[in-house]
Amino acid sequence: MREPILLTPGPLTTSLATKTAMLNDWGSWDGEFKALTARICQQLLRIAGADERHVCVPLQGSGTFAVEAAIGTLVPRGGKLLVLINGAYGKRMARIAGAIGRRVAVLETPDDVAPDPSAVDALLQADPAITHVGVIQCETSTGILNPVADIAAVVARAGRRLIVDAMSAFGALPLDARKVPYDALIASSNKCLEGVPGVGFVIARTEVLDEAEGNGHSLALDLFDQHQYLRATGQWRFTPPTHVVAAFGAALDQYFAEGGQSARLARYEANCRLLCAGLEGLGLRRFLPADRQAPIIVTWYAPDHPDYDFRLFYERVRARGFILYPGKLTEIETFRVGCIGAIDQAEIGQAVGAVRAALAEHVWREEPALQV
Amino acid sequence: MREPILLTPGPLTTSLATKTAMLNDWGSWDGEFKALTARICQQLLRIAGADERHVCVPLQGSGTFAVEAAIGTLVPRGGKLLVLINGAYGKRMARIAGAIGRRVAVLETPDDVAPDPSAVDALLQADPAITHVGVIQCETSTGILNPVADIAAVVARAGRRLIVDAMSAFGALPLDARKVPYDALIASSNKCLEGVPGVGFVIARTEVLDEAEGNGHSLALDLFDQHQYLRATGQWRFTPPTHVVAAFGAALDQYFAEGGQSARLARYEANCRLLCAGLEGLGLRRFLPADRQAPIIVTWYAPDHPDYDFRLFYERVRARGFILYPGKLTEIETFRVGCIGAIDQAEIGQAVGAVRAALAEHVWREEPALQV
Repeated sequence: MREPILLTPGPLTTSLATKTAMLNDWGSWDGEFKALTARICQQLLRIAGADERHVCVPLQGSGTFAVEAAIGTLVPRGGKLLVLINGAYGKRMARIAGAIGRRVAVLETPDDVAPDPSAVDALLQADPAITHVGVIQCETSTGILNPVADIAAVVARAGRRLIVDAMSAFGALPLDARKVPYDALIASSNKCLEGVPGVGFVIARTEVLDEAEGNGHSLALDLFDQHQYLRATGQWRFTPPTHVVAAFGAALDQYFAEGGQSARLARYEANCRLLCAGLEGLGLRRFLPADRQAPIIVTWYAPDHPDYDFRLFYERVRARGFILYPGKLTEIETFRVGCIGAIDQAEIGQAVGAVRAALAEHVWREEPALQV
Repeated sequence: MREPILLTPGPLTTSLATKTAMLNDWGSWDGEFKALTARICQQLLRIAGADERHVCVPLQGSGTFAVEAAIGTLVPRGGKLLVLINGAYGKRMARIAGAIGRRVAVLETPDDVAPDPSAVDALLQADPAITHVGVIQCETSTGILNPVADIAAVVARAGRRLIVDAMSAFGALPLDARKVPYDALIASSNKCLEGVPGVGFVIARTEVLDEAEGNGHSLALDLFDQHQYLRATGQWRFTPPTHVVAAFGAALDQYFAEGGQSARLARYEANCRLLCAGLEGLGLRRFLPADRQAPIIVTWYAPDHPDYDFRLFYERVRARGFILYPGKLTEIETFRVGCIGAIDQAEIGQAVGAVRAALAEHVWREEPALQV
């Protein structure tokens, strides 16, 4: 009867302290809410290792809204974006750039292969029209970790600009703005920072954002405008999701109380190790080699049975209190299990037990599939 | 010490039942969340008086995101939008259309004057390039009620299409889709439906939306895509603000339990009457004549004192537990008081008392203004 634990990479399981922060109505124009927004932005800059040369601009909506806002605002209309693709989120970034009328090039590698910085370098040398490079830090469609720092060095040496989609990694996987040069980094409230969904944010170099006036393809997604208004008034330009923002503030306080990035990463690594040992002990196999696996979400080959049915598997695990995530690979039948959220080894151990019980019961179709 | 009551038109004061609906984490892919989304959309269609020829498409973000999505998706790239302006939200709609590259015409009237349907008719006759008309049902910058039904009739007779921004009116002021023809109506969770902010929605004619493929200027704000994905999968296309959606579902259940649109309107009318009688009894004067005043938000002339300071007034009322709203008129010093939210005559009576006490104390500057 308890609400299920989410083993999904956002929305994820949040703490009760985070959720109870939503039991208050805030006036978006009020001084207290302005102070809350300012404090959150300062905390996000601190996590990023950003300094006075950076700003944090929050944006209403899902993380994808913030990705589109960053590309639309920072890649000029005459610019060209090279997107490094090894999964669904890289594909989405390229699709966004095309949809808003920016020229796009892609470097696509298989889902289990990270982009090679030297291949990026060669493409930048070969195509002087490319002004920006877009990369996904942790590609949630598989869980693969991409070498953002090495790519950033190549991009900087070539005199181009980098946009990092750090959505599912920010706050857990290190990426220090003092060491890794980027124009913009995009993430959201509801991944490793363990807030609830509804807010994204962009950490951008101030001088780059200040030059971006008039680039935007949209009013709602214009980060230049959003930043100008916030800087001038302390308020969000349009109605913010006040309760989501309050939960985000509470989640960030807990993040620092836990010990910040290193502590968050250590917990997720422990979760991931226990998950992998447990499911491998049940005979399941991981899609990615261990050295490319980020401790965020793990892709598993489906149980080996000709009539395996994910929906049935999902329902049998869900009945035991855990929500799995479907696979996102088109060629291979997989499923995914997240390691992030307000969970630790207790929940991971229970989840392994739930998967064991579901597999023992059976997860292949013997009758018409259940409707999920 | 109690949290202040919001006399602001969204975010507004919500019920405890609405807020406690957020104390749960939902998997956005899970069957229960899909059922919740479907139920909310059905309830919104029912409130609109819409039938099987309409669809409801929810969208992440503030109401303005949904306005931009509706214009970008439904006004073709070669179309032209006539916007009827008598306040900030009409101006914003025209600004959106310009920002996304649609041709725009405007019919602007003073803040206290509603657009004249015959003037709209004349403009439509004079400019055959105009394909769509945009109107604000209740212009929150003053609280004026615009004659949407009469304008809809003129637009339909002229063979053009109507887009209604019903943000601050939907669910309280009547606008029956069976009687008032429109292509799209836009509103959000956090106005008269008394949810928390973070979700907008568009009620559109299905055949119009189905023809809108490829119009969009954006991926995130493409309502055609959003609708296709929702129809095919039951899921939101990108991560939904799950907690905000859950609160919206709870708020809608309370809406119907209260008695629906007529009961909601009756409560707001009673709030508005008591507010107006109370503040007029304190010598304050309304900006709008009574016959143009919607019972949503009331604009008041500032207290008559040469050194009147809104921030001081705001702080003095806030210290007594109520959050007022600043005026939005550029030429005249005003302030605004909302009548909507999970409040009734008890809170309105207390608010009048708070304003009385603040005015008695003084609301003009005798020393440097307080920082809000």
